[in-house]
Amino acid sequence: MTNILFAAGAQRWTTYEPLLRAELPDATIACDLPPEEVDYIVYAPGSEVQDFTPFTRLKAVLNLWAGVENVTGNDTLKVPLARMVDTEGLTQGMVEYVTGHVLRHHLGMDRFINQPLEGWGQEAPPLSADRPVTILGLGTLGSACAAAIAALGFPVTGWSRTPRDVPGITCLHGADGLDTALRSAEILVLLLPHTPATRNLMDAAAIAKLPKGAAIVNPGRGQLIDDDALLAALDSGQLSHATLDVFRTEPLPEDHPFRSHPKVTPTPHIAAFTRAETAARVIAGNVRRGEAGEPFEHLVDRDAGY
Amino acid sequence: MTNILFAAGAQRWTTYEPLLRAELPDATIACDLPPEEVDYIVYAPGSEVQDFTPFTRLKAVLNLWAGVENVTGNDTLKVPLARMVDTEGLTQGMVEYVTGHVLRHHLGMDRFINQPLEGWGQEAPPLSADRPVTILGLGTLGSACAAAIAALGFPVTGWSRTPRDVPGITCLHGADGLDTALRSAEILVLLLPHTPATRNLMDAAAIAKLPKGAAIVNPGRGQLIDDDALLAALDSGQLSHATLDVFRTEPLPEDHPFRSHPKVTPTPHIAAFTRAETAARVIAGNVRRGEAGEPFEHLVDRDAGY
Repeated sequence: MTNILFAAGAQRWTTYEPLLRAELPDATIACDLPPEEVDYIVYAPGSEVQDFTPFTRLKAVLNLWAGVENVTGNDTLKVPLARMVDTEGLTQGMVEYVTGHVLRHHLGMDRFINQPLEGWGQEAPPLSADRPVTILGLGTLGSACAAAIAALGFPVTGWSRTPRDVPGITCLHGADGLDTALRSAEILVLLLPHTPATRNLMDAAAIAKLPKGAAIVNPGRGQLIDDDALLAALDSGQLSHATLDVFRTEPLPEDHPFRSHPKVTPTPHIAAFTRAETAARVIAGNVRRGEAGEPFEHLVDRDAGY
Repeated sequence: MTNILFAAGAQRWTTYEPLLRAELPDATIACDLPPEEVDYIVYAPGSEVQDFTPFTRLKAVLNLWAGVENVTGNDTLKVPLARMVDTEGLTQGMVEYVTGHVLRHHLGMDRFINQPLEGWGQEAPPLSADRPVTILGLGTLGSACAAAIAALGFPVTGWSRTPRDVPGITCLHGADGLDTALRSAEILVLLLPHTPATRNLMDAAAIAKLPKGAAIVNPGRGQLIDDDALLAALDSGQLSHATLDVFRTEPLPEDHPFRSHPKVTPTPHIAAFTRAETAARVIAGNVRRGEAGEPFEHLVDRDAGY
């Protein structure tokens, strides 16, 4: 019998209990177990367990979070520590968010949502083949989103700092490439990392290169956009809409104009999110590996601290 | 030189002129040409041309509409008549509409659209793999939509009256299959034709089989749903939302409750729509075929009347 102590906060137990039980039907999983009977601890920052000494048969500590800075310095922890790495879930979540909001802008859905239908105006959007989409950033997330959008028929241009090659996507790079990528972008998706080179990349001059009436979707980093330039372009009509999942300050301050601007759809940093469902799968995977005598995945190098 | 008379209404000329010129740059295309110089007529019901006798070198009449009932009985028409068949555009438009609205319901987008963001609640939806979608109807449109939704990771169940096989889709049929298809459907898409057998298929009993809180997307036919049962299920919470593109009476009457119900998103029959862009391509394709001496596509059997 495998015994798993859930020591990641009582408030999360309600969510994780059914998911972990479904993944590991033969294990005993509880919030309270005699320490000397525990094989694995599911852990999170701020856990009630701070002294691992009584856990004499412990095989591993499995962290629910990517960040492990609160436990790497704990000298009572003598067994392997694994962090949460949910590449699959994060990428898939991002693909769903970006594809959904690109289609929303493409189809002009907002005209019909949360308001009565007026009249019977049947203006239909063009087909996706006539709606160019540009994605800035062709890393794991950008490439996956580009492929999903291209599969729906959109002509997709991708831009990255250094040359990339993604099948079915027009790939551009460098300063000249950025200019070309922006000039055709009826819908622009930002999936670049935040670096000194990308900070305020979408400033007034860059926004002015977009076709008039373009829409921006930013699930990347808040620092990629000059907020004042964005608001000015929305107010002038240069941009039709901005859907923003990330902000310079999060949570977004209560009095920030993005919260209530009629041409801004703010979402609370939910595009790529470690879901409890996927986190439970990652935890269960490591328990199964441990029980099968296989190496754990996503082990933390405690000397390096991550 | 090929001469094309646009006789499909002055109000459409503004839209079609640039599209047809782009498709056929070497042709003369105009709203007014000497009849004896006209090679092709672009036509629509209610056209100003009712007597084809003066068009002595006419090669074909190319209808902008699928319906040709206003011209098949015209005895002065002695040349081939082609109708508009835009399978590609209609199917692609339907795939975009259905995929977009399935993602919208899946992601819970409405919470953020056309209203200020309140707070910072980061409840994220499950990943698509945990959101079962059912499509009733596996014809051309239903199969294409099922494939696009499955490609995004949703588990898709398709149901049809007679057995079908669509790769990657759980295909069910018959009365027992319908029961199973409904019971798992967190998002239900209706793409059945309207027949005596499908009329009011989604009545109170069928709606009650859906998981509580399911959403319905109906771009099929208005008659598939019992409107009163739908409203009752929305009001009771059995259904969370209905996105409806088709109605028993169209245009939807101004005082119809669907227009302003907070849980109904009505769209004005725009999911599958012959776009001017694709119609212009179909017209141009037939002109090119005629000029190359090839058979016209989509010819009307004037004896049969369609």
